[in-house]
Amino acid sequence: MKKGGKTRLERFIARVVGQRTCIDAAAQRTGALAGNVWEVGLGNGRTYDHLRDRFADRNVIVFDRQVMAHPDCIPPADMVRLGDFRDTIPAELARSAGEVAVIHADIGNGSVTESRALGRWLTPLFVHALAPGGCLVGDQPMEDPALEPIPLADIGATDMPADTYFLYRKRA
Amino acid sequence: MKKGGKTRLERFIARVVGQRTCIDAAAQRTGALAGNVWEVGLGNGRTYDHLRDRFADRNVIVFDRQVMAHPDCIPPADMVRLGDFRDTIPAELARSAGEVAVIHADIGNGSVTESRALGRWLTPLFVHALAPGGCLVGDQPMEDPALEPIPLADIGATDMPADTYFLYRKRA
Repeated sequence: MKKGGKTRLERFIARVVGQRTCIDAAAQRTGALAGNVWEVGLGNGRTYDHLRDRFADRNVIVFDRQVMAHPDCIPPADMVRLGDFRDTIPAELARSAGEVAVIHADIGNGSVTESRALGRWLTPLFVHALAPGGCLVGDQPMEDPALEPIPLADIGATDMPADTYFLYRKRA
Repeated sequence: MKKGGKTRLERFIARVVGQRTCIDAAAQRTGALAGNVWEVGLGNGRTYDHLRDRFADRNVIVFDRQVMAHPDCIPPADMVRLGDFRDTIPAELARSAGEVAVIHADIGNGSVTESRALGRWLTPLFVHALAPGGCLVGDQPMEDPALEPIPLADIGATDMPADTYFLYRKRA
């Protein structure tokens, strides 16, 4: 029942702490870059609230099928791209290829197979969207020669279960 | 938007870390007691999984309207009390008054007024259920002369936002 000896509560704590650590590390590493931030998957708006705090001087563009977030965490209407990622991401990409500073993509749906497949499909689009030096943070592995994986131990996320959260930097 | 300067993600992290810290403190303080553990509100089963790990030698009795937990966190059928707390808690209390070692009650529903009212209604029932020296952990304040509040700073939960989680010990 317990993977690696941790309870479900402990693994969940590690995941949400890891989200914060990865987002903060991405903010720290992209301070000198121009460009928007993408939140791929709004959900309840917790990480959106964190992104708009950490990237207060940037547009945070949000992609989801519908806006189901907490009332305090509803993005401005002109920053929301509603619909299937397979439509909305390519459409936004056409406007901002090579100009996005940070992408946060928490896209897992409970099925590892489906989530990994979505991650693989999104990876080249994200590579294309990011500015050189931009960061990609998310819950799926995204392997691409243009993406340098940043080990979570390097950013102080030492208690993180393997394969829970990932941070990459687009090579310059 | 941000209470006390924290983002929604940061407040959520503090809440789940606080859950773990309070449950672990309750386990530490009740090792010498006999008796069952009550999980009032199963939800997705995260804290249930933690309780059954920390109280591996005790029955963990679960109260909820329905079992909607993760498949890994479904309690044994004979440990589940299905229905409205207002029916199931008094019924179980009739069987085990004064014999419960630890109660965890994460019962908030999003409405502060409703959740506080449910907390006030449950408080005397929980006092009646607990063994002397037993612990009560939860997301609602529960004031009763028989309950000694344990400050969260005393158990190392220093980063906890006020009024997020509570720990009490029933006076001997």
